[in-house]
Amino acid sequence: MEQLFNTSEYHERLRQVKLQMEEQGVDVMLVTNPSNMNYLSGYDAYSFYVTQALIIIKEKDQPFWVGRRQDANGAKLTTWIDDEHIYYYTDDYLHSDTKHPMDVIAQLFKKWKQDQRRIGVEMGSYFLSAMSYETFRSWLPDATFADMTRLIGNVRMIKSNQELHYMRNAASNAEKAMHAGIDAIKKGVPENEVAADIYYAQISGAEGIDGDYPSIAPLLLSGVKSSSPHLTWSGEVFNGDEIVTIELAGVHKRYHSPLARTIKLGQPSAKEKRLGDAVTDSLNQTLNAVEPGVTCGELALVWSDAIRKHGFEKYDRLGYSVGFSYPPNWGEHTASIRQYNQTELEPNMTFHLIPGLWEEDCGVEISETFVVTENGCETLANFQRELLTKEP
Amino acid sequence: MEQLFNTSEYHERLRQVKLQMEEQGVDVMLVTNPSNMNYLSGYDAYSFYVTQALIIIKEKDQPFWVGRRQDANGAKLTTWIDDEHIYYYTDDYLHSDTKHPMDVIAQLFKKWKQDQRRIGVEMGSYFLSAMSYETFRSWLPDATFADMTRLIGNVRMIKSNQELHYMRNAASNAEKAMHAGIDAIKKGVPENEVAADIYYAQISGAEGIDGDYPSIAPLLLSGVKSSSPHLTWSGEVFNGDEIVTIELAGVHKRYHSPLARTIKLGQPSAKEKRLGDAVTDSLNQTLNAVEPGVTCGELALVWSDAIRKHGFEKYDRLGYSVGFSYPPNWGEHTASIRQYNQTELEPNMTFHLIPGLWEEDCGVEISETFVVTENGCETLANFQRELLTKEP
Repeated sequence: MEQLFNTSEYHERLRQVKLQMEEQGVDVMLVTNPSNMNYLSGYDAYSFYVTQALIIIKEKDQPFWVGRRQDANGAKLTTWIDDEHIYYYTDDYLHSDTKHPMDVIAQLFKKWKQDQRRIGVEMGSYFLSAMSYETFRSWLPDATFADMTRLIGNVRMIKSNQELHYMRNAASNAEKAMHAGIDAIKKGVPENEVAADIYYAQISGAEGIDGDYPSIAPLLLSGVKSSSPHLTWSGEVFNGDEIVTIELAGVHKRYHSPLARTIKLGQPSAKEKRLGDAVTDSLNQTLNAVEPGVTCGELALVWSDAIRKHGFEKYDRLGYSVGFSYPPNWGEHTASIRQYNQTELEPNMTFHLIPGLWEEDCGVEISETFVVTENGCETLANFQRELLTKEP
Repeated sequence: MEQLFNTSEYHERLRQVKLQMEEQGVDVMLVTNPSNMNYLSGYDAYSFYVTQALIIIKEKDQPFWVGRRQDANGAKLTTWIDDEHIYYYTDDYLHSDTKHPMDVIAQLFKKWKQDQRRIGVEMGSYFLSAMSYETFRSWLPDATFADMTRLIGNVRMIKSNQELHYMRNAASNAEKAMHAGIDAIKKGVPENEVAADIYYAQISGAEGIDGDYPSIAPLLLSGVKSSSPHLTWSGEVFNGDEIVTIELAGVHKRYHSPLARTIKLGQPSAKEKRLGDAVTDSLNQTLNAVEPGVTCGELALVWSDAIRKHGFEKYDRLGYSVGFSYPPNWGEHTASIRQYNQTELEPNMTFHLIPGLWEEDCGVEISETFVVTENGCETLANFQRELLTKEP
């Protein structure tokens, strides 16, 4: 099957991760975050809802893959690693009262004499549940454990040129999907029909760019639902006077380029206009402040200052590192654009900047995904940046 | 906003859950599985990728909801519980090196004098990470903890008539999406175009039935990829001689009715035909054996016996309880149709029965979602049940 990157790029990633392991005093990593597994091995399947892991031993040239038996063929097909490095457990370990897949993984650690070492684990991953971790530890009383949730994510923050190529393609898919959604919103049309058009555009993709499934469903927030950013569509029809927010990502080969816009059917009220102006202006000012060496915390202050001039006081998180991901989330869970965050921007970092303002009865979101360049930033998508309006 | 069930149904669910808590000696439940949160409160948003919880105190008539500040409006809009029961944490707790949302949740346990009690936790949930659990525990040294991963799931297994109504609607959406997928597969068409058509049909839904986002992306496995059941589509075009498996769910108001079919472009080979006959025959025999009082383990034996007559020896899990869910998975993670499983079938239980046979270079999957009736079962979708063929 098609390999998304040259094997040399996987080797370079592994080298970078091992440098971080060395710095952190970690001998072996139990990688359970599926995005991190893919980053190092290329493994790509919708199988992460069961226990699976990549094991990185500092002295070994290749990772080991361990997962469910029926997924082992997929590991052979999609990874660059040798078949002898693919291990599996059988189905009797799934959702059992007496067994757990971590029993098998821990036994491999013993077999490979990794049971007296310092093991890095991703304790903040969705895919290392409290049960998984306790089971794993219980088998390895002589090992020590260190939380390395962000170790691989920190390496992933800086994108290669090939990764940026995929993200620019993803942005083209985002533009197409956003146009499809806005075009579909009309008085009398059910919300789910708009969502269906968005999905169709996301997956069919822009010309020559195959779309992939998004790690978050398209968020379609109409009327009062625009006051809360994570509600989804229903089967109700548009009345023709709503404010509607769409947040979606274009996706290409699992790289995400998110984009949010708010659109008003008919004329915006004074309140909606004020929210729209504040969000647009603060987004522009924040983008203008992006350059290498600036910290995420400094960017957040630019934003807070900008909205204050419009009469808003708010210090929420307004962005995060983004790129490759699997459900349930497209953020990388490393740097947050938020007060006090000390992460310094570097070229080839990529962020979703999504300043939103929400009142009790409505809200406005306008966002951009950008890559940090040598002297500023490049927004990946090209889409009218303001509170949009449309005849109902 | 529209409430999916009468408040009395939520009260009845809460009563059932409290009976189970009583039986297990649990005073208070920290519910982090978003499907369980919805089951008891109605809370519906794509916000579960950050920490959130429902807290069930045995003496209280209503649950408490705790989540991210920007999601609190959504909790007020979608749940039946009073606004005074909605609590939130601020964004500085997200992905921080020094704070965790569980700090806030644990403080509420103290404030409500729940810190010396026996607390049920869902240790196997994707949404109670090792880090969340350790943080929560560290604040509550005088409490005791009990793993109750399946407590609410066991109550959810038996569906109400209203739930079955939603699942039958979901099955109509599944039929529509499967037809759309099979119709779209043609020599020269890229795989992602087929996936786009499937998504469009899933979300627009059958006549009068709004579609919802699926908890697993549609799985589209062509050629050698059919040998591994969880691979997804690419941008490659169909050659016109492939075997192709589609596994998808119709979804309505978050209730899922999964359906899988395998289709051969052109004439099946002898091997493909043999796989198709074995899967079809064993699926039919297993469905015929369904009735109240039979155990999941007994069903699995019917299946193993049936495929043995076709020359296959296999004891994998071939089904699981299904219904309401959020990503990343649509299974309920309670009963598995698998050897030795002692769960007795009862009327109004719902399962996805998905016997698959995979060889090194191809595979066949044919599945049905069924509800257990008084004297047998009803399959929810109506779709030709055999290895399908199509002119390329």
